Amino acid sequence: MAMYEKKINVFLEGLASDAPVPGGGGACGLVGATAAALGGMVLSLTTGKKKYAAVQPEIDELIQKMAKQRILLLNAIDKDAEAFRPLSEAYGMPKETPEEIERRDAVMARALKDAASAPLEMMEALLETGKLLSRISEIGSMLAISDAGVGLSLCRSAMYGASLNVYINTKLMKDRTTAESMNKRTKELIEEADRIIVPAFNAIAVNLRGE
Amino acid sequence: MAMYEKKINVFLEGLASDAPVPGGGGACGLVGATAAALGGMVLSLTTGKKKYAAVQPEIDELIQKMAKQRILLLNAIDKDAEAFRPLSEAYGMPKETPEEIERRDAVMARALKDAASAPLEMMEALLETGKLLSRISEIGSMLAISDAGVGLSLCRSAMYGASLNVYINTKLMKDRTTAESMNKRTKELIEEADRIIVPAFNAIAVNLRGE
Repeated sequence: MAMYEKKINVFLEGLASDAPVPGGGGACGLVGATAAALGGMVLSLTTGKKKYAAVQPEIDELIQKMAKQRILLLNAIDKDAEAFRPLSEAYGMPKETPEEIERRDAVMARALKDAASAPLEMMEALLETGKLLSRISEIGSMLAISDAGVGLSLCRSAMYGASLNVYINTKLMKDRTTAESMNKRTKELIEEADRIIVPAFNAIAVNLRGE
Repeated sequence: MAMYEKKINVFLEGLASDAPVPGGGGACGLVGATAAALGGMVLSLTTGKKKYAAVQPEIDELIQKMAKQRILLLNAIDKDAEAFRPLSEAYGMPKETPEEIERRDAVMARALKDAASAPLEMMEALLETGKLLSRISEIGSMLAISDAGVGLSLCRSAMYGASLNVYINTKLMKDRTTAESMNKRTKELIEEADRIIVPAFNAIAVNLRGE
């Protein structure tokens, strides 16, 4: 994990600065990884406990899956930064002659697609993490139910955040077919997050408020 | 800032473990600090720019305020951990004789109130951060509008997450007057977050989707 810790260090230092990366996309990756870590915490407090012996095989499976999501989302921080750099370079390309404009447009089209794809892929990973957290909130230790709930809430907000990073790039795309197809998928992912994550979170809140 | 970075390092390492702290409360503090850092980023990209010269005095003020919120929320991670420790110790107190039960109950009552107060205070800091982000999304650089939006989304989810950490503690309180008063304030804060943060986020999403 040392590599990731160092990465997060550098990440938080740069976030508040005027450097183009890391930005909101990377922040969503970090928050997603935090949600996955919370899932891991609930699983750590569940595994091996007599009370939850009946679901131990599923807990074992969830431990593996959640650890994978955590690494995936930490890696997504880098992927987002890598996808953004060519775009900021494209903005700096000359646009005086028709040839320059044509070349700049071609580079820009590619860069915008990559910059929109990174948060879209991150959203897929965040939704999967949310689904796992939802299951964990059903079968995991009740002592840590609030931690599962925090993970669910963070996951959903990271998806909403990442969606803005899709839209800010598709907005500038000249290829409207690709842009609209990416926007459509983004909307579907948000809807699925609302359908799965919100009820799971609300069930926990209602339970804890004793309603 | 080196102190905080080290703290975050230690925090993320411990989060996925079965250690009682850090947990969901601390995660909300980290996410809030990330949201504040994103606010700082938008301000860094706005300050000194000709286009935003008219709001420069307010930008200067917001830079100071947002930096303060970031430190406040990072400190809230520690406060949450400190408030939780006495509670986990109270659970371990003997409860055989009537005297032991009475002593344990008294310690528990105090510990539960402290453990519920920490996330409630964090929610106040998160709401203030959300209000600042909402203003930043109105007057800050449009180039970083998605980053302000991510900050808003993260802020709200950290408030929802922290609310669970109030409820999990008030649920166990014998003093129902205090418990219900804390629950009431928690609900008010969530409602205020929904009222301020959701429209600010949606305005950004609608703008970026070009609707």
